[in-house]
Amino acid sequence: MTKIVPNASCARIRDASLFSRIVSADTAAGLIRDGMVVGMSGFTRSGEAKAVPLALARRAKTDAVGITLITGASLGNDLDGLLADSGVIRRRLPFQSDPRLRDRINDGTVMYLDQHLSETVEHLRSGQFPAPDVAIIEAAAITEDGGIVPTTSVGNSAGFATQAQQVIVEINAFVPSALEGMHDIYIPADRPVRDPIALRTPQDRIGDSVIRVDRDRIVAIVLSDRHDSFAALGAGDDDTRAISEHIIDFLQREVARGALPKSLRPLQAGIGTIANSVLSGLAESPFSGMTMYSEVLQDSAFDLLDAGKLDFASASSITLSATRHADVMGRLAEYRDRLVLRPQEISNHPEIVRRLGIIAINTALEFDIYGNVNSTHVMGSHMMNGIGGSGDFARNSGLSIFVTKSVAKGGNITSLVPMVSHVDHTEHDVDVIVTELGLADLRGLAPRERARVIIDNCAHPDWRDSLSDYFKRACNRGGQTPHVLEEAFKWHCAFRDTGSMVKNMAISG
Amino acid sequence: MTKIVPNASCARIRDASLFSRIVSADTAAGLIRDGMVVGMSGFTRSGEAKAVPLALARRAKTDAVGITLITGASLGNDLDGLLADSGVIRRRLPFQSDPRLRDRINDGTVMYLDQHLSETVEHLRSGQFPAPDVAIIEAAAITEDGGIVPTTSVGNSAGFATQAQQVIVEINAFVPSALEGMHDIYIPADRPVRDPIALRTPQDRIGDSVIRVDRDRIVAIVLSDRHDSFAALGAGDDDTRAISEHIIDFLQREVARGALPKSLRPLQAGIGTIANSVLSGLAESPFSGMTMYSEVLQDSAFDLLDAGKLDFASASSITLSATRHADVMGRLAEYRDRLVLRPQEISNHPEIVRRLGIIAINTALEFDIYGNVNSTHVMGSHMMNGIGGSGDFARNSGLSIFVTKSVAKGGNITSLVPMVSHVDHTEHDVDVIVTELGLADLRGLAPRERARVIIDNCAHPDWRDSLSDYFKRACNRGGQTPHVLEEAFKWHCAFRDTGSMVKNMAISG
Repeated sequence: MTKIVPNASCARIRDASLFSRIVSADTAAGLIRDGMVVGMSGFTRSGEAKAVPLALARRAKTDAVGITLITGASLGNDLDGLLADSGVIRRRLPFQSDPRLRDRINDGTVMYLDQHLSETVEHLRSGQFPAPDVAIIEAAAITEDGGIVPTTSVGNSAGFATQAQQVIVEINAFVPSALEGMHDIYIPADRPVRDPIALRTPQDRIGDSVIRVDRDRIVAIVLSDRHDSFAALGAGDDDTRAISEHIIDFLQREVARGALPKSLRPLQAGIGTIANSVLSGLAESPFSGMTMYSEVLQDSAFDLLDAGKLDFASASSITLSATRHADVMGRLAEYRDRLVLRPQEISNHPEIVRRLGIIAINTALEFDIYGNVNSTHVMGSHMMNGIGGSGDFARNSGLSIFVTKSVAKGGNITSLVPMVSHVDHTEHDVDVIVTELGLADLRGLAPRERARVIIDNCAHPDWRDSLSDYFKRACNRGGQTPHVLEEAFKWHCAFRDTGSMVKNMAISG
Repeated sequence: MTKIVPNASCARIRDASLFSRIVSADTAAGLIRDGMVVGMSGFTRSGEAKAVPLALARRAKTDAVGITLITGASLGNDLDGLLADSGVIRRRLPFQSDPRLRDRINDGTVMYLDQHLSETVEHLRSGQFPAPDVAIIEAAAITEDGGIVPTTSVGNSAGFATQAQQVIVEINAFVPSALEGMHDIYIPADRPVRDPIALRTPQDRIGDSVIRVDRDRIVAIVLSDRHDSFAALGAGDDDTRAISEHIIDFLQREVARGALPKSLRPLQAGIGTIANSVLSGLAESPFSGMTMYSEVLQDSAFDLLDAGKLDFASASSITLSATRHADVMGRLAEYRDRLVLRPQEISNHPEIVRRLGIIAINTALEFDIYGNVNSTHVMGSHMMNGIGGSGDFARNSGLSIFVTKSVAKGGNITSLVPMVSHVDHTEHDVDVIVTELGLADLRGLAPRERARVIIDNCAHPDWRDSLSDYFKRACNRGGQTPHVLEEAFKWHCAFRDTGSMVKNMAISG
């Protein structure tokens, strides 16, 4: 291996015995062999290893290498696209959000395992899936005693680093040193006898501030100087503001009737523009002393922290827009006592989500009249991103809210259809659905009642009559969840054939 | 109220201060008013209150009374049928399995909330659903200090009894006294701050042996002398034996490669003939020192206990066939150290199911080429029974196995279809599918790979070519989970119209 001479940026490697492991990114990438399973840091375009995968993509131009790539979630720095284009990614789990990788998934070139984000490391630990041969982990520092300090995400890094045969650490000297101490690394014991996870509030610290691995398994250290990508957050608009207002009104009623305290319950919000905008809206709400127990903190979380509305935020990653990135990273120390980053199997753990009674806010791609939700598959077949953590939270939360705009594709698609073309969340896991038009509170309702409330409150007027007509004709056939099976996907087929889900009545009969 | 004079069968009421609350079943039934929410003991036709609901059905012939009836799960003694026929049940949750009630659900007369069985009491506790006005709990005894000893099931009884305004206790002097001490009643604390559930193995006892309620809320005590209904278990056949053998072979391979110990992991098995038969098959397996952490113990659990294969069994109820009932109840004391009955929110709790890494075996009504499972809805619309605890276990288990015969209705329906007509369990929650024809190990596979393995291993020959043809044409259209949407339910529609899902090739194109 080519050795790299330590320089000033090596100050972050405080265990001098490891200096000899510093190599170039190309050298480290040379450790990855064809057919390997590689576990890499990175969650919601945040904290991913950068230099080594870039070197691997370069190498693949002349030296074909295909791997199974496991991460926390999506990667920034165009890595999923580059690695897909260069043929490096053969199998990918548990999440992605890259347009080019998406194309290769949908054309069947890349095998993609879309997973509940709390489960990936558990599958590895229990032998359901091969453990990583190599882990590549971005770190803010290596401590005097060899502890790996993660950067802006923890994701599955702790699991990968402890399970992999070989560990490559990328030291990123450009992330704030203030990150050190913000992580809480807890790893559930192997079975058969595992202790309860002793976390009772979002604030609790139950683990170590660093990832501990046997130093001998750190086979290479690479110096990296790339930033995280900025989150591509769209601005809120009238629709997202309306959605936010519906949710605030609803939560106020819950507080008024004594079902929730004024500080609510710990909040989770999915990634993306709508969820971010909804959460930002809480800055104008009457609630105070709120906490978050989520998987990712977007701009909105810092809006709420800055507004004094949010007392504490726990997550697995921080992902920020271009406008907030420098500000938050520059003031990170100010948030020290109000932030913790955890492994995603803890941030999303069913045990904790259920215990805390979390209010979960996730985004639907489409939903149906009975309240089943499709979060992933466009027209039932084509993968958009993945289910992410939405299932971990929706299933086990105290209150599961799904949000979406009532129409998409310039008004040619209704988000509310007779039957979703793919089910990610069944009606059991969907308590409340909100569009810009209104909120459907589905708690305590049977499917036929849910349909009426959903159509009345959430349907776009262009499709409301058609939906009512479908529901009526379905009820005439009977059933707990009445359907007219031969018409269930007629609207989807119409969109495919004509570019529009035909509006009111034109399609029925 | 008419007072009933205490007699010899009152020996089970060891708190003499409660003698004055003894009334007739008719008097107790008179406490139920129209519109009330009633929480009643009973889980899988076991341990339900009997005398009071029968009296209520009688009363309803002349005095219309409609209620919301919440139980643990299904009721025996024909109660769901009688209460449905008499118009008493307006709203029903969280599970049922009665043919007459099913008809009223499917014709839209009764509003039915099909729920994950671990969640019902949590919904009540958090105000998602109104708490019961009255709880009716079958008991084996009331202790000197007023503790209620449940009978053959715990179900949601502890939750109902502690939350209801009024509690009616039915003392059943015909259940074995040996039941006392076999229960472990633990109730999670109200939020915001709740402790972890300190259960680390199926054997652990973490609660009280009785249900504790404020004596003042016990408004009536009724003496009852009815048995539980016998479980309607069909005999195993060649198909169920083949399914069992496939599972044993698979588990042996897992043991051989070190992914499971020879004692396996705690087992859960769903209710019904197939799951019972599969479990019974383990008596002939090479595994030993096994444990169960399940929701119901059927005959098979006692077969395994008697065979010395099972060291310990934890569940929420015992439900036995006519041939095993007297035997097991007569020897109950022999099982004392190897049995515990828990509230269903503990037997099915996501926290515990995940911690223990349970091997879950549940029954599918139909499944599709990508491994999504329908457990509840016939032809997508009509409710059979309900999802029960299958979702609690399948989602959080260490290994989720679904079993079914490859065909139904005399060979006119294939259990394996292009797309399930209703989704209860998404592909994420289905690791292994087994029919009498073979076993599909889906772990680590992407949807297109799952389809190939499922069709090759589980499809009945009469439909295999058609399924392959559908899959091939779907792949030509692309996608992560390719479908031909306009044909997805064509087979279901053919069954509806012709009485048969048209076999190989006759329908495609």
